[in-house]
Amino acid sequence: MQLCYSPTSPYARKVLVAARESGLDSRMELIQVNPWDANSGIAQKNPLAKVPLLILDDGTHLFDSPVICEYLNSLLADPRLIPANGPERWDVLRLQALADGMMDAALLIFLEHSRREEGERSAWWLNLQLETLRTAVRALEALVPVFSASPDIGQIATGCALGYLDFRITELDWRSGAPLLSHWFQRFSSRPSMQATAPETTA
Amino acid sequence: MQLCYSPTSPYARKVLVAARESGLDSRMELIQVNPWDANSGIAQKNPLAKVPLLILDDGTHLFDSPVICEYLNSLLADPRLIPANGPERWDVLRLQALADGMMDAALLIFLEHSRREEGERSAWWLNLQLETLRTAVRALEALVPVFSASPDIGQIATGCALGYLDFRITELDWRSGAPLLSHWFQRFSSRPSMQATAPETTA
Repeated sequence: MQLCYSPTSPYARKVLVAARESGLDSRMELIQVNPWDANSGIAQKNPLAKVPLLILDDGTHLFDSPVICEYLNSLLADPRLIPANGPERWDVLRLQALADGMMDAALLIFLEHSRREEGERSAWWLNLQLETLRTAVRALEALVPVFSASPDIGQIATGCALGYLDFRITELDWRSGAPLLSHWFQRFSSRPSMQATAPETTA
Repeated sequence: MQLCYSPTSPYARKVLVAARESGLDSRMELIQVNPWDANSGIAQKNPLAKVPLLILDDGTHLFDSPVICEYLNSLLADPRLIPANGPERWDVLRLQALADGMMDAALLIFLEHSRREEGERSAWWLNLQLETLRTAVRALEALVPVFSASPDIGQIATGCALGYLDFRITELDWRSGAPLLSHWFQRFSSRPSMQATAPETTA
C-alpha cells in the first residue's frame, strides 16, 4: 500500500506513527505530497485535496485519517490500536476525536497567520481556536491518569496534536498548568515512532 | 441516552437521521443546544464545544459524529448503518468522510460570511472551500450509480451535506452538472428521517 503524506501534517503523522507502532510501516510506501500545490494531483485521489490518503494494492483510496487508522487496525492479528468493543473502544475513539479536533483548531490558527493577508485576520477567530486548545489541554490533563499502558490510536493522536502545537502554535504555552500531560508527552515523544516522524520546518 | 444537538448542524442531523433510520430515535432524548452560547455548558461535556454529543445512560460522553454513528451501529442487531467488514465497510466510511469534509468546507464558508467582520473575509479562503465543494460534488456524481440500496451512514452523511449546501451555501449551484446526484438527493430528501430533521432558519 502507498501513503500520500506531508511531513508537516499532524493527521498524516498520526497514520505514520500508528503504522510504525503496529509494524505495518514496512508494507507502506511513502509518497510525499504538498496538498497546497494544485499540480500535486491529490484532488484527483481525494476530492477534499487533503493528506493523509492511503492507496491499497487493489487501487482503493482511503481517507480521512480515522478511517485509515481503522483500516490499519483491521490488518493486525492483535488489533491493539483500537479495542474491538466495550467501553475501551469508545474511550479510545473519543480521545482520537478530541486530539483530531485540536489539530483542526491549530491548523486553522496556522492558516490564519500564514495564508491570509494581514488585514483579513480575525482576532475573534484566533481566540476561539486558542480557547478550544486550552479547554482540550485541560481535558487531556485530567485523562492522562487513565491512559492505557500501551499506545492506542487515542494516545498516538494526542501525541501528534501536542507535537503540532509545539511546531506551529508557539504562542500557546500548553505545558503551563498541565504537568501530567507535559510529563506524558515527554516520554511519548521519545518513542522511535515519534522521533522518526517529527515535523520538518521546510513546508 | 441523550443527544445534544443544534437544529442547524449538519453533523447533528446525520446522527438524528441515522437514529431514525435504525429505529433508535425512540431511545434518544433530544437536548437542543446553541454551541455558540458560552453559557450552553457544551464545553464542559465536549472540550471542542461542538455538537452532536451523545450522553450514554452510564454518563459516558461520546463525540464526534462518526464516533457517535459507529456507537449507534454497534447497538443494532442488524448493523446496517456501517457494514462490519470487507470493501463495503471502507466504501461507506470513506463516503461519510467525504460528506463530512463537505460539511466542514460549507461551515467555514458560512462562518466567513456570518461571523467575521466584512474586511476580515478572504476571497482566497472562500474560493478554496467552494472549489473543495465543487470537486466533492463531481466525485459524488460518479459514485451515485454504486450507492447501495439501503441507506448507510455514507448516504446519510451525503444527504445531510447536500441539505446543508441548500440551507447555507446558496451561491453554489451544485445541481448544475450533477443530474444523478440531484435526482438521488430529491428521492433521499423525501424519506421521513430527512423530512423530520430539515434545518430551521432560526439560528
